[in-house]
Amino acid sequence: MEGHFESTAAVRDIVIGLSDGLTVPFALAAGLSGALASSRIVVLAGLAEIAAGSIAMGLGGYLAARGDSEHYAAEKRREELEIVERTRDEEEEIYEIFQKYSVPRSNAAPVLEALKQNPSAWVDFMMRFELGLEEPEPNRAHRSALTIALAYVAGGMIPLAPYMLVVDIKQALLLSIIITLMALAIFGAIKGKIVGTGWLRNAIQTVLIGGVAAGAAYLLARLLEPHA
Amino acid sequence: MEGHFESTAAVRDIVIGLSDGLTVPFALAAGLSGALASSRIVVLAGLAEIAAGSIAMGLGGYLAARGDSEHYAAEKRREELEIVERTRDEEEEIYEIFQKYSVPRSNAAPVLEALKQNPSAWVDFMMRFELGLEEPEPNRAHRSALTIALAYVAGGMIPLAPYMLVVDIKQALLLSIIITLMALAIFGAIKGKIVGTGWLRNAIQTVLIGGVAAGAAYLLARLLEPHA
Repeated sequence: MEGHFESTAAVRDIVIGLSDGLTVPFALAAGLSGALASSRIVVLAGLAEIAAGSIAMGLGGYLAARGDSEHYAAEKRREELEIVERTRDEEEEIYEIFQKYSVPRSNAAPVLEALKQNPSAWVDFMMRFELGLEEPEPNRAHRSALTIALAYVAGGMIPLAPYMLVVDIKQALLLSIIITLMALAIFGAIKGKIVGTGWLRNAIQTVLIGGVAAGAAYLLARLLEPHA
Repeated sequence: MEGHFESTAAVRDIVIGLSDGLTVPFALAAGLSGALASSRIVVLAGLAEIAAGSIAMGLGGYLAARGDSEHYAAEKRREELEIVERTRDEEEEIYEIFQKYSVPRSNAAPVLEALKQNPSAWVDFMMRFELGLEEPEPNRAHRSALTIALAYVAGGMIPLAPYMLVVDIKQALLLSIIITLMALAIFGAIKGKIVGTGWLRNAIQTVLIGGVAAGAAYLLARLLEPHA
């Protein structure tokens, strides 16, 4: 169960990093290739975007995860105090939770009795059922940040590789489109399998996002540099 | 309550779009300005990145929100079937939920009795307390997508504006750094106020992310184009 949860969190981080990493550098490079004569600046801009995007997403993910941990700890301390200092109010909150599900006070009373026997279980119950908070995995922040950033870099290198390896920029663009749309389709299909929302549908969706983003960036760059 | 929830969701979308929109185009433009002699390509790359990033985040947000809605609806249908077809198993699951909080079967039984009187409340209870799912707001997907994308564009135009208005690229870079770090500080402070994690600390964090991302992109671009 623990292993299952951890792998799920890691998979989610990889998905977050890969989906933006495959899409944005791809679209940026495709856009610039429509307006520039040489691959050199496409590669430069693509790598700078990968550096910026991976750090923004990784550090952002780190701080978000750390914020979640701190928020959970602070709310837990507050609940721990409240069941001691404002016992009656907290009891009333239990009744209110059950009232939302049409459970009368008299039927909820035995649950409250049991929770009062075990203050730490009571606090956990309030965290989950009053506040809707799940305890974050410890040390998740570091791992999450690194996983997202590395997935972004890995994803971003796929669309950029052709511009590094193929001299002719039009050929590089074509190759980049082919391998990136394939990578997006495979990535979307696997994501759909894991999440259970259908592999074909997810594959089409991720390809669509990448295609629309690249198309928009390309058109914009052509409009701004019509003589390229 | 309803108004409060909706504004929270919109604020969250604006925060998502603004934080990446302020950071990534800023870092990309700063990075390229270290390696290129003219602002023209910095602006071109920045605008292409804004197009790509806003579409990737907006469409991505749209599909994620729609996926959440569909996932909720599918799980709800499954629970509705299960309380009819596998009533005993579902009853057992109620006991298991309470067991996690050291509530004995005998104390949980009256709650189960009450839920059985009201099947739709029973389903809602399972959705929230077995599966941990909250009902997504209807039509959230479209609004979410548009809000995230527009916030990304608005955020991205701040760091790019100096490169459009100031001819000298070094001056444009300096101006972009000043106004973007100020915007990041203000944005972080407001975010910290809203989330309640401290305005100063959040202001420092968002400035740090933007600064590190821009610094890394700048160094990378200088390494790749040392003679610029």
